[in-house]
Amino acid sequence: MKTDKILLDHGSGGRMSHQFIIDTILPLFDNRILSLLNDGATVDIQGKRLAFSTDTFTVDPIFFPGGNIGDLAVNGTVNDLAMCAATPLYLSVGLLIEEGFPTEDLEKILKSMKAAADKAGVQIVTGDTKVVPKGAADKIFINTSGIGLIPFPLDIGSDKAQVGDKIIVSGTIGDHGIAVLTQREGMDFDSSVKSDTAALNHLVKKILLRTRDIRVFRDPTRGGVGTALNEIAEKSKAGIRIYEDKIPVKGEVAGICELLGFDPLYIANEGKMLVFAKPTCAEMVLEGIKTDVLGKDAAIIGEVVSDHPGKVIMETRIGGTRIVDMLTGEQLPRIC
Amino acid sequence: MKTDKILLDHGSGGRMSHQFIIDTILPLFDNRILSLLNDGATVDIQGKRLAFSTDTFTVDPIFFPGGNIGDLAVNGTVNDLAMCAATPLYLSVGLLIEEGFPTEDLEKILKSMKAAADKAGVQIVTGDTKVVPKGAADKIFINTSGIGLIPFPLDIGSDKAQVGDKIIVSGTIGDHGIAVLTQREGMDFDSSVKSDTAALNHLVKKILLRTRDIRVFRDPTRGGVGTALNEIAEKSKAGIRIYEDKIPVKGEVAGICELLGFDPLYIANEGKMLVFAKPTCAEMVLEGIKTDVLGKDAAIIGEVVSDHPGKVIMETRIGGTRIVDMLTGEQLPRIC
Repeated sequence: MKTDKILLDHGSGGRMSHQFIIDTILPLFDNRILSLLNDGATVDIQGKRLAFSTDTFTVDPIFFPGGNIGDLAVNGTVNDLAMCAATPLYLSVGLLIEEGFPTEDLEKILKSMKAAADKAGVQIVTGDTKVVPKGAADKIFINTSGIGLIPFPLDIGSDKAQVGDKIIVSGTIGDHGIAVLTQREGMDFDSSVKSDTAALNHLVKKILLRTRDIRVFRDPTRGGVGTALNEIAEKSKAGIRIYEDKIPVKGEVAGICELLGFDPLYIANEGKMLVFAKPTCAEMVLEGIKTDVLGKDAAIIGEVVSDHPGKVIMETRIGGTRIVDMLTGEQLPRIC
Repeated sequence: MKTDKILLDHGSGGRMSHQFIIDTILPLFDNRILSLLNDGATVDIQGKRLAFSTDTFTVDPIFFPGGNIGDLAVNGTVNDLAMCAATPLYLSVGLLIEEGFPTEDLEKILKSMKAAADKAGVQIVTGDTKVVPKGAADKIFINTSGIGLIPFPLDIGSDKAQVGDKIIVSGTIGDHGIAVLTQREGMDFDSSVKSDTAALNHLVKKILLRTRDIRVFRDPTRGGVGTALNEIAEKSKAGIRIYEDKIPVKGEVAGICELLGFDPLYIANEGKMLVFAKPTCAEMVLEGIKTDVLGKDAAIIGEVVSDHPGKVIMETRIGGTRIVDMLTGEQLPRIC
């Protein structure tokens, strides 16, 4: 599997990047916290439990229906912290700009970042700006890192799924990836699909006010729901069964996917989350999610089963079953 | 001053980037902590005082005498935290890699990051890897963000310099910039100058064990000592007087600077710090610094004066005086 050059697939968020991190990066950094491979790290500082996360955004195009690289970057890191059940507090912003980039576009992006930070209730407290010569970067890349406070101990994580858990998705899947894709050069879609980019921390808070019987929070970004479920199945050594007819997908997203041969299960989301809840409280969690504007299309899409540990099986609409594997290559590069 | 396109100078670390941040970024983000424009932010989380900092590294070439982009990225953020008088604890790493980048080079870089983190006593706990298509980035860019704990309250910052303070530099200046420059294509120097990239946190700790009568810690990276002193003079509304013959510069660095028309005062350093200490303890601080391998060439190079507030004046070797202004443009792009 190891290649002598870095491939696009190594950053896909799918199987190859998963393997690349395990084979190449982890052995060199050799660190217990990093090895957990969660969306963010959980660290202790003098008795305070904090979440810490980082993400670099390279989306192309930088402006797309429903958002731009700026709010995407803020929401992305806010969500990584929220998935650790942390209250996001502070963000850093690292701008990497290509010489000649329009100042007006930068201002639009920064305004969106500020608006997204306000909406999420976080503060941008530190930053860095680098400008590289024309051609050394494609327009603009943004890194955001964030710190959150974990208010109470909660035993959640991608390795905590247990047989019987119900799997909830907070809304329609694939919106972000398709919204970005339809804006790419050469794509001639007259589509109304918007990115779902949004901060999920308020929704997480709402859930945790109802119950703490949660096993996994996960935002299925690069690699989509299919890849996220596979990582959870692998790390929890549990089987996952989902039902195609329960998975909310917008008609237009499904249509574009069919036309292009994509599977919505592998398309990136930027404002959706998967929740694994104990069976006794799953309905209550679902109702809680549905009261939020970000969760109105939420649905229970499956459960954790004792069969086929480590694998995700989908019951299809026509009554058959198929294995949902991790995304193997790069379906859509530069989606976030 | 405002241009409709982003220029290299906007990221130079000098006057234009200073102004760009004040004019364009701060008004949009509008945040008290960010407005302090220190190397890192100081934030409170439930009574714990933390430092939080971010930096993106774009150095070209990525391997240079004395280091590479990896240890540079670790040391850079460790130093930003140390300059806040914090004990650096945790780092995040955001890799942005161009498709086709040699895996072997990546491994070398990651190994250097691990070694640098170990030496500084910090843990790399979270990360992100993005790969962009060939041509969309120049080889590799690395963002590091970091969290440190401020063990005791200390009233330091670039705005805290007071008349009478002695200014100490921890060693020879300009080594990093010249080491990188001599490796650039077309530069035909047979030079032995090595980058000074190093973590300064242990040195800071050593100083603070001797005294807490410190007003400013500052690592003069992009823009060099000249720009750093100007920022301190401006923010502290104080005059600064330095003496050319006291400033430690390696003979070879001085020679290359003279040949190319550069001023060592504006060349980047990556393992040096400026310390503003109360006059009563300056000698003791200097002695403390000199006991450390990173500080053996340390010297008192000047003081804070009541004349010319906001300006830096240098007494030259031949007995005249000249104004040392902030670096106005980009002397050497992609130096860190």
